Amino acid sequence: MHVLSKNILNQIITTRPSESHKGNYGRVLTVGGNSQFGGAIILATSAVIHCGAGLSTCATSVDNLTALHTIVPEAMFIPFDSEYKLIDALTNADVILVGPGLGTNEDSLKILQIVLQHAIPEQQLIIDGSAITMIAEHHEFLPFLKELHPILTPHQMEWQRLSNIKISEQDDIKNTLYQQKLQSTVVLKKYHTTIYHRDGSISQLAIGGPYMATGGMGDTLAGMIAGFLAQFKLKNYDYVVDAAVYAHSAIADKISTTKYVVLPTNIITEIQSFMKLSVAP
Amino acid sequence: MHVLSKNILNQIITTRPSESHKGNYGRVLTVGGNSQFGGAIILATSAVIHCGAGLSTCATSVDNLTALHTIVPEAMFIPFDSEYKLIDALTNADVILVGPGLGTNEDSLKILQIVLQHAIPEQQLIIDGSAITMIAEHHEFLPFLKELHPILTPHQMEWQRLSNIKISEQDDIKNTLYQQKLQSTVVLKKYHTTIYHRDGSISQLAIGGPYMATGGMGDTLAGMIAGFLAQFKLKNYDYVVDAAVYAHSAIADKISTTKYVVLPTNIITEIQSFMKLSVAP
Amino acid sequence: MHVLSKNILNQIITTRPSESHKGNYGRVLTVGGNSQFGGAIILATSAVIHCGAGLSTCATSVDNLTALHTIVPEAMFIPFDSEYKLIDALTNADVILVGPGLGTNEDSLKILQIVLQHAIPEQQLIIDGSAITMIAEHHEFLPFLKELHPILTPHQMEWQRLSNIKISEQDDIKNTLYQQKLQSTVVLKKYHTTIYHRDGSISQLAIGGPYMATGGMGDTLAGMIAGFLAQFKLKNYDYVVDAAVYAHSAIADKISTTKYVVLPTNIITEIQSFMKLSVAP
Amino acid sequence: MHVLSKNILNQIITTRPSESHKGNYGRVLTVGGNSQFGGAIILATSAVIHCGAGLSTCATSVDNLTALHTIVPEAMFIPFDSEYKLIDALTNADVILVGPGLGTNEDSLKILQIVLQHAIPEQQLIIDGSAITMIAEHHEFLPFLKELHPILTPHQMEWQRLSNIKISEQDDIKNTLYQQKLQSTVVLKKYHTTIYHRDGSISQLAIGGPYMATGGMGDTLAGMIAGFLAQFKLKNYDYVVDAAVYAHSAIADKISTTKYVVLPTNIITEIQSFMKLSVAP
Repeated sequence: MHVLSKNILNQIITTRPSESHKGNYGRVLTVGGNSQFGGAIILATSAVIHCGAGLSTCATSVDNLTALHTIVPEAMFIPFDSEYKLIDALTNADVILVGPGLGTNEDSLKILQIVLQHAIPEQQLIIDGSAITMIAEHHEFLPFLKELHPILTPHQMEWQRLSNIKISEQDDIKNTLYQQKLQSTVVLKKYHTTIYHRDGSISQLAIGGPYMATGGMGDTLAGMIAGFLAQFKLKNYDYVVDAAVYAHSAIADKISTTKYVVLPTNIITEIQSFMKLSVAP
Repeated sequence: MHVLSKNILNQIITTRPSESHKGNYGRVLTVGGNSQFGGAIILATSAVIHCGAGLSTCATSVDNLTALHTIVPEAMFIPFDSEYKLIDALTNADVILVGPGLGTNEDSLKILQIVLQHAIPEQQLIIDGSAITMIAEHHEFLPFLKELHPILTPHQMEWQRLSNIKISEQDDIKNTLYQQKLQSTVVLKKYHTTIYHRDGSISQLAIGGPYMATGGMGDTLAGMIAGFLAQFKLKNYDYVVDAAVYAHSAIADKISTTKYVVLPTNIITEIQSFMKLSVAP
Repeated sequence: MHVLSKNILNQIITTRPSESHKGNYGRVLTVGGNSQFGGAIILATSAVIHCGAGLSTCATSVDNLTALHTIVPEAMFIPFDSEYKLIDALTNADVILVGPGLGTNEDSLKILQIVLQHAIPEQQLIIDGSAITMIAEHHEFLPFLKELHPILTPHQMEWQRLSNIKISEQDDIKNTLYQQKLQSTVVLKKYHTTIYHRDGSISQLAIGGPYMATGGMGDTLAGMIAGFLAQFKLKNYDYVVDAAVYAHSAIADKISTTKYVVLPTNIITEIQSFMKLSVAP
Repeated sequence: MHVLSKNILNQIITTRPSESHKGNYGRVLTVGGNSQFGGAIILATSAVIHCGAGLSTCATSVDNLTALHTIVPEAMFIPFDSEYKLIDALTNADVILVGPGLGTNEDSLKILQIVLQHAIPEQQLIIDGSAITMIAEHHEFLPFLKELHPILTPHQMEWQRLSNIKISEQDDIKNTLYQQKLQSTVVLKKYHTTIYHRDGSISQLAIGGPYMATGGMGDTLAGMIAGFLAQFKLKNYDYVVDAAVYAHSAIADKISTTKYVVLPTNIITEIQSFMKLSVAP
């Protein structure tokens, strides 16, 4: 087990090469946000963009179009219930994030199915929130995990649903055993998040705190992982995930020195400055 | 009668335990905002979230969905005219705030009725704004108060409607007598707000000022009470209400040193920093 | 002719009496904003609220509901094409502002007619923008001016349409002659705005500048006049208008020291602080 | 070839004459933003307004109305699929920007056609984004370029589509040869953007950097060119374009000292202050 330190940041967040364009920093597709949980996918998409992904498209309910454009006019939109447009966007993405605010009804299930069927191993797939719950309930989705090697970002209850390991019994050995079966990276969100990498190594977060215990925080983390993977694709994959997870909590820690609770939108606002300060001189 | 001082703040606003998650900080349901008064419930919900409640859902007119998500993407949404969804959300809430911008027509009445019928004494219920007016006009609702022991947050005219005590005749003795019959906490909003607790004790606010005399201020207070109750549920209930009321005016006083009038959105922006400064060192 | 100086500000903007509530600071109704020019009425309403009016309702196209609530959740909304609701709101208002973004088609005309028919001399009426153009084209409206003694806020072309005095021939004598016939206050917006009061006195603005030459600036001024009249209703009426006009340009002058152009939203953001600084010590 | 230096700024951005009004600073019409790419035209329009254009109207999908008004209430709106309103707005504009987020389907094509048919050489026309792609695919549009002498703002792939010069073979000689045939100004966006003027002169940008490699950046540039042309119409046309392009990257460079990536909204926020600092003392 490796305890993450701030060194991880300047290994990943380096000065960009001068001659580069937005194509070099990846196309991200975020999929989620039904008419009840629209904020979740908006936060995730906003995090993607503030991290510096090249181009971001958000596939969500049309009910969320205006709030999305108002909060991040930099994002493009497609209605997530247009199968044709969703497949087209999936085909064009480098990184796909599915789950924030997606819900768990029949429509959500259909969308998740389309994502899993059309994603390919060469793309980077992050599965978050209600998408994890649906996979836990539909074991026919498990083979997709083994083929696509996604990153899963469950909190402890979602991990229990997926792994059948009760929260009280979750430990690194049991978690690793199940995670290795899934052939997926698992970012297990809890007081001091643990990351189980596909090679069996474990990264342990020792920062972050209870001021982060508020709705939307996980959606923002998932967006940051997507944004980091999109632009740092030439770097070590596991380190990129570690860096995103570390950055998310490090920003929260910083904000918590002046705010009692840290809201997701506070974190998003600070991403660009934090990343600048993280570049090795 | 006890005059509130800033000591109330650091009794309630204490450092959070390290190992805690959003479930520890409560689920709040805010109910209100018809198509004419949407801003009221958005301000209330935004206040809830900035105070640090764990999870917040806003049951409002679908007309307010986009403005809600744009102002606080951290909030979840349900259409308040879906009886099924509203009951489901009521069942899952720890704290319920009903009234800001709810209106007083037939639809408003129906929604209030659903809230009162499905809330249980173990939940904390705050009744504000037009919901108070409707209760004053529909005495069949009074038994619910005696069962649910809510917090009522009337301004003086709403209190007159409910208690039949004319504004000019409202004093602590008359107010207490009626409030005790209601078996409810009463936060009587006026120049120097008075809080009548269920045990008969009275808390008197001596701060705040005329720069707060603007629309939406009461909605914001109601949201702060809800947000405080959600996360400080292990603390003395009466003190938590006192602390929320005190914090609301203390923030306004601070802002008024640089602004002629203090708007609700100004207060909301400062809640997180103010609470941080209020934690005992 | 009296050249306005900053003394006008601390005559009007004084410390509020401690025991006062939002009812003391007036109810403002803003009417305008069709589906093409929604921004105009949103800016005006936002200015009203930032000045410190007690309660503000915006009667506008339903197309503008969400942008209004997002920009100023403190405002209430009514659909301006609901005759019943509009009349009800008119009856309850202390100050009425009609015109920003109202347009000049049949629907606009109908709305203006309702406003003029239901406003009463005891209310303060401000007529701006396209409402002035419509009055110029419909002389049957002129008797309403003589009865209601409104404030008109034309720019020079609108004044030409109304008065038939060509821009090149507009001077204080000709302007006063026509303005006296209208029995209205006229705020003639131009390089150094001139205010023609009903008693025949003339106030001349000597501040402001070309950085203010941008769309929405007049709407913001109209909103500030409404916001000042609402809360300073016990002060000398003419001085209140003078103070609002002076404050609008003084804020712009201040902002222009750091910005090449001053946008209406910049001004609105600074109103509260500016007014605080204007209170006599 | 002329390398642009910051001297270009104070040649163009000069103190405005005192006696001027919004008519002096131009009417801009921005056309674009279908229901998928609404953010693009909102960013462009916001850039126009922050630069200081006198009056701005945005012709876009009605789906974008609310986000537009929320982000820039200073902008006016028309639905871009109303042929009558679009033609009317085209007739009244001094500067027209077409393309950001317009898309490339049949409806987009129709709108582009209307713009090209109704624009006149006395107006300044900027063609950006998908409008360039459509012109590349529809050679029947090329005669309009020769008549209207627009500014084209392609990135390298769009220029390849239009000119048939592969990206790897694009150099000043080949580019100039084709650009001269088009009788248009070409702002070729790339690492160090090059501007090909109609008189055959070439301006070379030597500032800007990879922190600008993010979606919406080009839309913002197009908006700034439009905003500069609108208000600086009495200045040398080529220099105005140069100044807008230079300012866009200079602002980004400044922001990049504190942010890892620079978002379009960051640039827009800084335009007014940057322009103020650029005025010769």
